Amino acid sequence: MAMNYYKHHVFFCTNQREPGMVCCGARGGVELRNYAKDRIKALGLNEGEAGQRIRINSAGCFDRCDEGPVLVVYPEGVWYTYIDKEDIDEIIDTHLIGGQVVERLRI
Amino acid sequence: MAMNYYKHHVFFCTNQREPGMVCCGARGGVELRNYAKDRIKALGLNEGEAGQRIRINSAGCFDRCDEGPVLVVYPEGVWYTYIDKEDIDEIIDTHLIGGQVVERLRI
Repeated sequence: MAMNYYKHHVFFCTNQREPGMVCCGARGGVELRNYAKDRIKALGLNEGEAGQRIRINSAGCFDRCDEGPVLVVYPEGVWYTYIDKEDIDEIIDTHLIGGQVVERLRI
Repeated sequence: MAMNYYKHHVFFCTNQREPGMVCCGARGGVELRNYAKDRIKALGLNEGEAGQRIRINSAGCFDRCDEGPVLVVYPEGVWYTYIDKEDIDEIIDTHLIGGQVVERLRI
C-alpha cells in the first residue's frame, strides 16, 4: 500500500433526514463539521506535504444514526460521537494532533 | 485499535462546484455513487456482521478535483478515478470483493 494521501481523513455525517427523525445533520453535524474545518485551517493542518495533511469532509448517512452525531477518522477507522465544540477540540488536539484516541467519545 | 466497523468504507466525492468548474459531481460522481450503492445492496454486501459490511457514501470535496472523478476506499486508503459503470464494477469485483487493488484506476 502507498502512503496515505491524508494523514487523517475525517468524515462528519451531515445527513438530513425527515423532520422529527433522529439524524446527525439535525444534531450539530453541519455546524461542528464547519467548526472543525475552520480550526484545522486556522492551525495550518490542512496544508503541507502529501501524507501529512488533515482533511475534514462532510459525508452522507453512516447508518449509525442512533449513536449520532458521529464522525469517523480514517485510515485508523476510529469512530466518535460528540456534542459540542469542546468535544471537537478534544478530538483535534488529542487524536489528530496528539495521536491518541479519545476513549471518552469513542463509539 | 478495534475491528473496523465497515470492512470497506467507500466515499465518492459528489461535490458540485460552480457551473463550468471541473468537479467530481459534474463528471458522474453522483450517478456512479448511486450505481455502486445499488449494486452493493443487490449483492447483499451492505448486510452482515459488523466488520464484514461494505458501506458506500457520498462526501464533499477531496481537493483532488483535477484527478476526478475520485473515490477513496478506507481503511486501506486506496484512491481511484473512474469513468463509467464498468470501472465501478471492476472496483467492486476486484477490490471490494476480491481484495486486490485495481492498479489501472488507482491515483
